[in-house]
Amino acid sequence: MKLDDLVTSSHSWMQGNGPESDIVFSSRVRLARNLADNIFPNRATPNEKAQVLERILAAVKDLEHFKDGLTLKMDELEELDKQFLAERYLISRELAGGGAGSAVVISPDQSMSLMINEEDHIRFQVLLSGFRLRECFAIASQIDEQLETRLEYAYSPRLGYLSACPTNVGTGIRISAMLHLPALILLRQIEQVLQAIIKLGLAVRGLYGEGTEWFGNLFQISNQVTLGRSEEELIASIEKVIRQVMHSEKAARTSLLKTKSAVLYDKVGRAAGILGNAHIITSRETIDHLSTLRMGIDMSLVGDLDRQAVNELFILTQPAHLQKIYGKTLDASVRDVERGTLLRQRLLEK
Amino acid sequence: MKLDDLVTSSHSWMQGNGPESDIVFSSRVRLARNLADNIFPNRATPNEKAQVLERILAAVKDLEHFKDGLTLKMDELEELDKQFLAERYLISRELAGGGAGSAVVISPDQSMSLMINEEDHIRFQVLLSGFRLRECFAIASQIDEQLETRLEYAYSPRLGYLSACPTNVGTGIRISAMLHLPALILLRQIEQVLQAIIKLGLAVRGLYGEGTEWFGNLFQISNQVTLGRSEEELIASIEKVIRQVMHSEKAARTSLLKTKSAVLYDKVGRAAGILGNAHIITSRETIDHLSTLRMGIDMSLVGDLDRQAVNELFILTQPAHLQKIYGKTLDASVRDVERGTLLRQRLLEK
Repeated sequence: MKLDDLVTSSHSWMQGNGPESDIVFSSRVRLARNLADNIFPNRATPNEKAQVLERILAAVKDLEHFKDGLTLKMDELEELDKQFLAERYLISRELAGGGAGSAVVISPDQSMSLMINEEDHIRFQVLLSGFRLRECFAIASQIDEQLETRLEYAYSPRLGYLSACPTNVGTGIRISAMLHLPALILLRQIEQVLQAIIKLGLAVRGLYGEGTEWFGNLFQISNQVTLGRSEEELIASIEKVIRQVMHSEKAARTSLLKTKSAVLYDKVGRAAGILGNAHIITSRETIDHLSTLRMGIDMSLVGDLDRQAVNELFILTQPAHLQKIYGKTLDASVRDVERGTLLRQRLLEK
Repeated sequence: MKLDDLVTSSHSWMQGNGPESDIVFSSRVRLARNLADNIFPNRATPNEKAQVLERILAAVKDLEHFKDGLTLKMDELEELDKQFLAERYLISRELAGGGAGSAVVISPDQSMSLMINEEDHIRFQVLLSGFRLRECFAIASQIDEQLETRLEYAYSPRLGYLSACPTNVGTGIRISAMLHLPALILLRQIEQVLQAIIKLGLAVRGLYGEGTEWFGNLFQISNQVTLGRSEEELIASIEKVIRQVMHSEKAARTSLLKTKSAVLYDKVGRAAGILGNAHIITSRETIDHLSTLRMGIDMSLVGDLDRQAVNELFILTQPAHLQKIYGKTLDASVRDVERGTLLRQRLLEK
């Protein structure tokens, strides 16, 4: 398996066939772990980081979940490749910024990835289509247990797993889900819903951002705290909130269909019309229209488009993906033209 | 022939097959004439207007050009029907506002119409597809000669034909052409071109308007003066100006294709995508996109749409046309929905 093989392959969660995936695009569990005998990456010398890398790679090598997977060292990658991996959610922007000693191991189906020498020695994630936090956690726990037989973790009986950032100390878990909430936005109820989530102690981010701006009606909801609560408790509490948000979004969709169905059909029709016919289109405009189109598919407003095709376009139209597909680096203005070509081809195919 | 037969029939100029009709949508010659022995309509009593109407209808009845045509009296028409006729350029807004004594006679192919008791006793027009001012004038002259054998015109050897408005005294001719100038607008050269036309003593109006605002990149160029110059001179001078404007628009199109072809394809693609997929669309937005689409067809940027279908939509999507097609009066908001339905149907058919 090579990095370029990823370009034409579909991430498991891009298939969009998980439970409740009309609203919950994906579920993710990430664990942060550190080795007991080594200094944390932010204070480590290049030599120490190299040693940690070797130790962890040796341990990961024969893990069942990463069998036939792909190991990529950051100092051996082009900038474009790093950006490509970040767009696929396979590495963090932080890891992409790391040099010698930083690496990622990716499972063949891309649902699992394990980063080495990011902020912590080890951060690995399980990312699945739909609302499947418990399944993500079960797989992550298997990986965790298998790693623990091979490596000694930095662990405090009082605090739990130690980590470079205090917010990760304890379980070291980050549980998150990407929710698609177009109807709440159309009905201007989103702020109210987001405020309620934040009051419950969870974090909300727009797509790709730490900031308050959002793209494509997509929101990542995640836990803020890991200390003092069990993984079970954390998952149960975030699941409960997600169910409430799902309920609100479903109610908003039903309400829109009843009271503003022409507006809905119009938005979805125009989105399809523009995506299928534009010749110059930015990433931002693309995401917004894809979001509207996806809503149309999920609400059965359009018949002849499949969800996977639209899901894939969310990722394939990103800047680095476009350049990987095209096979070379492209200016933003050329990318806007190539993005139009890709969209027209893909949407006409279906 | 009944008024409702017009709804489903295509105006000859809507076929868009005249010479140079990639830029000159239509050519029109209108003559204003008055009867020698009757007071002008603005001062006439209802009784006098009724007498004039009868005299003129009797004269028109056996004119070859209006054989099997349609005679419509304004006081027998619904408001919607008057608006419908005005949208087709078969009557003026002024005639539509007239009551008893005002009427129109329309030739079977709708290329000729003769209004009675508008501002003048008689105003008739010949309207053809493409750049055919001389042909319009030749037909108008035939009608004029035949009418003159049946009616005595108000004529002064010194001034020429007399009319209710001084701007029409002399030849009583209004020569005009509807030009489609999207490339000059895209290149921001339109103001310069319009100013040049005005300096040459011609009038320019946007579509449907006396004002300066324009819709759909359409401009009507016409003569201002009729006194002191022969019809031949007037036609020659306006033809010369139109040729210059056509030349500028062609040069602008060529330049756009060379330097901004992606922008052109993008505009045309988006226009087609929106018109073919919107569910709520105003008359104004429709005209703008139809204009862009028509440019795409005329510049061979799109292959699978025919010019006549697009031409017809310029007219059929107007408010009164939509209501006539639908068979009843509709609120503006309902019209916007029905306009979307009509556009999707018509553009999918092709």
